[in-house]
Amino acid sequence: MDPAVVAKQFTEYYYLTFDTDRSQLAPLYRTTSMLTFEKDQILGVDAIVGKLTSLPFSKVRHNVSTIDAQPSISPGALIVSVTGYLLVDEESNPLSFSQVFQLVPEGSTYYVFNDMFRLNVG
Amino acid sequence: MDPAVVAKQFTEYYYLTFDTDRSQLAPLYRTTSMLTFEKDQILGVDAIVGKLTSLPFSKVRHNVSTIDAQPSISPGALIVSVTGYLLVDEESNPLSFSQVFQLVPEGSTYYVFNDMFRLNVG
Repeated sequence: MDPAVVAKQFTEYYYLTFDTDRSQLAPLYRTTSMLTFEKDQILGVDAIVGKLTSLPFSKVRHNVSTIDAQPSISPGALIVSVTGYLLVDEESNPLSFSQVFQLVPEGSTYYVFNDMFRLNVG
Repeated sequence: MDPAVVAKQFTEYYYLTFDTDRSQLAPLYRTTSMLTFEKDQILGVDAIVGKLTSLPFSKVRHNVSTIDAQPSISPGALIVSVTGYLLVDEESNPLSFSQVFQLVPEGSTYYVFNDMFRLNVG
């Protein structure tokens, strides 16, 4: 499977789901999954979804600028690097972000093992 | 080994070496290493160092804003996500960048298996 194709399909699904109903991201994570969200380190699907759904905004829209993907050293896994900007609630100032995923194959699909999100400020 | 400690030591060494003499980054890469630099995909230490040393600037300084690290799914390996800005030649406008590494253990040290660099523009 072409890493660029998987990365594009994954990010389209991920950000559409995030921006529509982020509780629905749960099936993408496992008990071993890790999220670094700004400075916070969170382990496991329940804590990750708890974090995502408790973020202090009700509306969010991600706009993706670049998607890069490479095969990981672990067979079949991919590293995906995303840059873009997001708009929150009624804010008109876009916030630049970077997000990194490691996607690990499971059956005919992938789950998120690593997820690291940062706003690019300063 | 604490991923945060390894990531900090690695990024300090990497950007100091990059900004001083980027040809000296060769020992960090292997024939299986991958670099995505903006849109360009480059495989193997020789091609990677060739790319890095042919970048069209003579002076560069990286300033790191954030470093995040997580264990990878591959035993002992780490994913490192860096954001920051860089200054090139006599430019006074800092350019925001994102860079992702996967570091893989080898003996008592690590090499770079994945390297993905993007400027954050727009």
